[in-house]
Amino acid sequence: MTDSVFLGDLSWPEAETRIAAGAVMFVPLGATEQHGRHMPLNVDTVLPTVIAERVSRRAGGLVLPTIPYGNRSQPRSGGGSKFPGTINLSAQTFSLVVRDVICELFRHGARKIVVLNGHYENIWPSIEGIELAVEALRPAGTDGLNVVRVDHWELVSADTLARIFPSGYPGIELEHASVIETSMMLAVNPKAVDLAQALNDGPARFKPYDRYPEPPAEVPASGVLSLTEGSSAEKGEWLLGEIEERLLQIVQQEFQ
Amino acid sequence: MTDSVFLGDLSWPEAETRIAAGAVMFVPLGATEQHGRHMPLNVDTVLPTVIAERVSRRAGGLVLPTIPYGNRSQPRSGGGSKFPGTINLSAQTFSLVVRDVICELFRHGARKIVVLNGHYENIWPSIEGIELAVEALRPAGTDGLNVVRVDHWELVSADTLARIFPSGYPGIELEHASVIETSMMLAVNPKAVDLAQALNDGPARFKPYDRYPEPPAEVPASGVLSLTEGSSAEKGEWLLGEIEERLLQIVQQEFQ
Amino acid sequence: MTDSVFLGDLSWPEAETRIAAGAVMFVPLGATEQHGRHMPLNVDTVLPTVIAERVSRRAGGLVLPTIPYGNRSQPRSGGGSKFPGTINLSAQTFSLVVRDVICELFRHGARKIVVLNGHYENIWPSIEGIELAVEALRPAGTDGLNVVRVDHWELVSADTLARIFPSGYPGIELEHASVIETSMMLAVNPKAVDLAQALNDGPARFKPYDRYPEPPAEVPASGVLSLTEGSSAEKGEWLLGEIEERLLQIVQQEFQ
Amino acid sequence: MTDSVFLGDLSWPEAETRIAAGAVMFVPLGATEQHGRHMPLNVDTVLPTVIAERVSRRAGGLVLPTIPYGNRSQPRSGGGSKFPGTINLSAQTFSLVVRDVICELFRHGARKIVVLNGHYENIWPSIEGIELAVEALRPAGTDGLNVVRVDHWELVSADTLARIFPSGYPGIELEHASVIETSMMLAVNPKAVDLAQALNDGPARFKPYDRYPEPPAEVPASGVLSLTEGSSAEKGEWLLGEIEERLLQIVQQEFQ
Amino acid sequence: MTDSVFLGDLSWPEAETRIAAGAVMFVPLGATEQHGRHMPLNVDTVLPTVIAERVSRRAGGLVLPTIPYGNRSQPRSGGGSKFPGTINLSAQTFSLVVRDVICELFRHGARKIVVLNGHYENIWPSIEGIELAVEALRPAGTDGLNVVRVDHWELVSADTLARIFPSGYPGIELEHASVIETSMMLAVNPKAVDLAQALNDGPARFKPYDRYPEPPAEVPASGVLSLTEGSSAEKGEWLLGEIEERLLQIVQQEFQ
Amino acid sequence: MTDSVFLGDLSWPEAETRIAAGAVMFVPLGATEQHGRHMPLNVDTVLPTVIAERVSRRAGGLVLPTIPYGNRSQPRSGGGSKFPGTINLSAQTFSLVVRDVICELFRHGARKIVVLNGHYENIWPSIEGIELAVEALRPAGTDGLNVVRVDHWELVSADTLARIFPSGYPGIELEHASVIETSMMLAVNPKAVDLAQALNDGPARFKPYDRYPEPPAEVPASGVLSLTEGSSAEKGEWLLGEIEERLLQIVQQEFQ
Repeated sequence: MTDSVFLGDLSWPEAETRIAAGAVMFVPLGATEQHGRHMPLNVDTVLPTVIAERVSRRAGGLVLPTIPYGNRSQPRSGGGSKFPGTINLSAQTFSLVVRDVICELFRHGARKIVVLNGHYENIWPSIEGIELAVEALRPAGTDGLNVVRVDHWELVSADTLARIFPSGYPGIELEHASVIETSMMLAVNPKAVDLAQALNDGPARFKPYDRYPEPPAEVPASGVLSLTEGSSAEKGEWLLGEIEERLLQIVQQEFQ
Repeated sequence: MTDSVFLGDLSWPEAETRIAAGAVMFVPLGATEQHGRHMPLNVDTVLPTVIAERVSRRAGGLVLPTIPYGNRSQPRSGGGSKFPGTINLSAQTFSLVVRDVICELFRHGARKIVVLNGHYENIWPSIEGIELAVEALRPAGTDGLNVVRVDHWELVSADTLARIFPSGYPGIELEHASVIETSMMLAVNPKAVDLAQALNDGPARFKPYDRYPEPPAEVPASGVLSLTEGSSAEKGEWLLGEIEERLLQIVQQEFQ
Repeated sequence: MTDSVFLGDLSWPEAETRIAAGAVMFVPLGATEQHGRHMPLNVDTVLPTVIAERVSRRAGGLVLPTIPYGNRSQPRSGGGSKFPGTINLSAQTFSLVVRDVICELFRHGARKIVVLNGHYENIWPSIEGIELAVEALRPAGTDGLNVVRVDHWELVSADTLARIFPSGYPGIELEHASVIETSMMLAVNPKAVDLAQALNDGPARFKPYDRYPEPPAEVPASGVLSLTEGSSAEKGEWLLGEIEERLLQIVQQEFQ
Repeated sequence: MTDSVFLGDLSWPEAETRIAAGAVMFVPLGATEQHGRHMPLNVDTVLPTVIAERVSRRAGGLVLPTIPYGNRSQPRSGGGSKFPGTINLSAQTFSLVVRDVICELFRHGARKIVVLNGHYENIWPSIEGIELAVEALRPAGTDGLNVVRVDHWELVSADTLARIFPSGYPGIELEHASVIETSMMLAVNPKAVDLAQALNDGPARFKPYDRYPEPPAEVPASGVLSLTEGSSAEKGEWLLGEIEERLLQIVQQEFQ
Repeated sequence: MTDSVFLGDLSWPEAETRIAAGAVMFVPLGATEQHGRHMPLNVDTVLPTVIAERVSRRAGGLVLPTIPYGNRSQPRSGGGSKFPGTINLSAQTFSLVVRDVICELFRHGARKIVVLNGHYENIWPSIEGIELAVEALRPAGTDGLNVVRVDHWELVSADTLARIFPSGYPGIELEHASVIETSMMLAVNPKAVDLAQALNDGPARFKPYDRYPEPPAEVPASGVLSLTEGSSAEKGEWLLGEIEERLLQIVQQEFQ
Repeated sequence: MTDSVFLGDLSWPEAETRIAAGAVMFVPLGATEQHGRHMPLNVDTVLPTVIAERVSRRAGGLVLPTIPYGNRSQPRSGGGSKFPGTINLSAQTFSLVVRDVICELFRHGARKIVVLNGHYENIWPSIEGIELAVEALRPAGTDGLNVVRVDHWELVSADTLARIFPSGYPGIELEHASVIETSMMLAVNPKAVDLAQALNDGPARFKPYDRYPEPPAEVPASGVLSLTEGSSAEKGEWLLGEIEERLLQIVQQEFQ
């Protein structure tokens, strides 16, 4: 029998056994979105998958296939839709995928579900998707269902941010493709990061509002919204380790 | 001829004249949502309407009817759905309303549109609604269309926040029904605010994640997420005045 | 504590008290639609709101925020979409708003709901919206729910019509922006009506069928489908008074 | 080559020839809905089909397959959903069928389209369906498209109504399953009508408002909303003949 | 009382009696689609209707109105959308019609339902429609519901195929407008078939994949995907007879 | 610069270069679905991904993230929804994902697109998704777009099937989790296959029709619809090699 924590690696009898044993089901939400000249398009898919895997190993969890396309990238948080390779789903489409997956997990008897998000713009349509699932399930009873929705960066403590940004944290939105994500990718898969390409042309100076149709030029040409200097695999591991620990605690606390 | 800046107050020939003259069209996005024991459910509707009115008077704008129901209130930013009187639209419904209104404005020849949001949870479905409108319009050409989407609280400067919160700004999410909104309501309509009811049971200490189905007890019983002490009409006018000025500048800059 | 009958004016504890006391919930359905050269675009929003307010005062009711955009205006009943300032929602969008609001009211414990319509073209999508809400609620039980759907003009008696139209009632569809609506607006807000602009170019002589795409010229240039002569605030009060009385009776009878 | 006017009876090369020759395309909208104890459930399907056939023979038209399910029957106009055998589509479903059919006809080059409705409750979702089709087609140009939407009963003149109802016309809504429909069915297919079953328990005395969930008992037990006495095949032929003539004129005038 | 097996021919009391007696409800799914130069566009509507009628007579069933428009015709199975007269519904629209009809039958107390399909491309959206109905019904209990979904050609035995195609059966997809359908139409309505027009330009040699937008020329010009030679009314009756027998057995077995 | 053929592994400038060079874009469609006791749930995801990778290496292609959830598994082709771990999307959801991805690729300038399907039930909603994308794009011009939609098993030649199944090919539907898929998985990832678990309890003897709600017991208990005996990595490589060659030819021919 496989010891993989990825649902997709299990046969159905193995899945049956794990679900019956009360495995926490992790649903990672990713994206295919530009992450600067120095990182691949799959950063938002890789990171929540890795985190879910690490926590699952310790918490007896199962990692569902990561949804690899995210809700519409916005200039102020992800660079917007114009960078080649950014593939957006509409909010409606994304919400329906989340709804369907939650309903299916419930149908199979799973009640402990962690929706683990890796892409800023997925926050709201993932909420909508979960709410739609709850609405669909409620008439016949949600019966012990507890869906925890986490954006992984929210689990980084102020202390860690202070260690990583001695001169001040620019905020999560500007962190797109910047020190936090770059460091975590360096920790996870250093070959995927080419720091030589990380020419700083930021930080972005965004207007405090959005414009549509999306104007051509506001985002730094690199797609990096803040800075990449100071990124390191070590810092990445600080981040991943802390996120892992805190998510483990959350899981233990919520689902004991 | 009326000098009202509210589109609804105009006859169609008056609307025709104003639109033909290039009036900036303001679409305020509101909500019907609890705002503590001391404020009415319509705070998120009143504030963007008032701001749109003030800017319209100076910028030759027109204020469309405020959408008075908002996207699903969430515990961490608005108290959630359990407070009596909070009436939520789904994200899909809300987005479609925004889409339809934008498309109709475009059909009538308006190209300068400001979507002015007063409810935190409306941010993402208003983006979706505008994106859907742009998608619907794009095949035949969007022809000069410029939709500016503003969350009014984003126009408050760091300086003003520092004046209002000498001991530190708790952040916009926790500001729900707290000093900023209370002060602005005191400035706009003091009779609508009953500070005697503003018993502080906050600030909320939220977990850094969401749970569904919405658990019963996490939000402070009052519905106030932060604090109300120190609210005043004077501070409200600082805020409203600054938002007005900055929105006026934005309008002038974007649509000149 | 406020004595307002508008839900939006209440704090959530006040809303809680009123709903728990069995308040009848009025959901006015409006529109933003041309009403001739002599009346503002908000006639269909103002009238059901006023009526709901008057009945609520006497019946212990609460008035929800009026939906200020209506279903697609049609040439034969509202002048169609071409008059500047007419902002249409699609039937699907409008129905979803109605559905969501009804479901939310039910969720908060309200069972006595009056959907009070002020715009002819809202009739059918409001029916659809209520039916969708009932379908959503039915699996878990509708438990005492009674939604009354009223088009306010249907409550005018034949006698009153005979008093107002001594030479014969032209029918409700042609009454758009004509004597009935003009009179009621004169009673409610005379400053909003400019009878000097009410140049009669009707009555409309419609073909007994519709054409799409909407042809340019069939509607009288003014947008008035019938006549405005003989409109008066006095007649408006006859109408409003009778509608108020009859709606009060309906409410008492249906919800005792 | 067949001389049928029903599109379904043609081979595709025959369809090609007729469409290329500019045939007017009739889209009959029907329903499956109770029509009293004396008439079958298909009345609303049969009548517009017959009328479309008669006009097509004279105008060189083609009759598309009749949509045999209609929008939700309502108590005040069709008896409501409770009579066994009434099969309702939602307004959304019905609108999408109409939209798709119109778009397909346009794609095949047809520009002269008559949507001929036989079921009261189809009025509004057929408007929505046509509007949705026009919205879908507009970006690439509607290019000569003219969709005429007719409710067949609207083509009956006041004179004919006066002949049929010497003591006064009760109005189209109450005419459900009553003299007009019964007479037309007697003219079209007398064997389908069993006047012995037409026990008068009407006319319906409806309240001037709707209630949901649909209450059990308001409609006359027979399902006939008005009266059936005086129905005859002769009167039916007066009606059908006049509708045919007037629709022929409309077609000639609109599409010459 | 009529002895018709078509629901549309019954009055509502007759429908009530039959449904209460446990009549099996047949929902035929048709299409309006090219079927070669020698057959009409309604083949896919006629055949499942006839089969449903024959089985209903023997099994005490009722035939609902056939849905006369099918899901998008595809080149490899139906010739695609380009043949004049082929009128496609989208999968979403088609599914919603099926969903609504199933839900309505359930509401009226029917539990034995046969969805009898006559158009290849309807297979999957009819599955979706039934699944959507089951999802809508499940929260309140599906209570004995059994929906049998049959594609009529699946009931032809290997023996019969061997008799009809002594040199080998080309497979159902290529059978579009070919020997099977032609023979059945010759048995049902020989006047609708003009074998003189059945010029063989097939069989189609399709690539084993699809291309979009639909390329112009891959389908045989006639629209016949395989061959028509050897079609006969006698073979048609073999087919219809066997399908009838087997469907009768299925009905008896499933619903006893 | 990476030489990966996976879009997700590229930075945006790399994606830009490849797309500008005319890379063929492969969109693999997978599923999370039971594949017997001896294979993991991700078979339908792994196989089209591997095939797309192999062809991309030779054809200068790019492989998009595989959609890892498929359309509703059906008993007769995939075992149905009851096996633990099978996670279904609705057809509507699945179609919208495909639509969005195709539209996004087009927006970025890609015109050569291969939708490579690995899950039987995805066939029809992937067609719908592509058709929806074409409808969305058509008004502004599809401009050279060519979407090739391939089900990988369709590229296996009769000769190869004869080699693999000397005693006759059971047909693709019954092949679920059987010799073809097992052999290909043995070739791709032998550790993922546990032939010791492949207890034959088939082949399935399906009724020639579907039943809903899905009945409990028709599928072989293992989930294998046919047989697994005779599966081997060697046969798997015959299959993969041939599919690769033929897909390469298709790509060269369609997109030269």
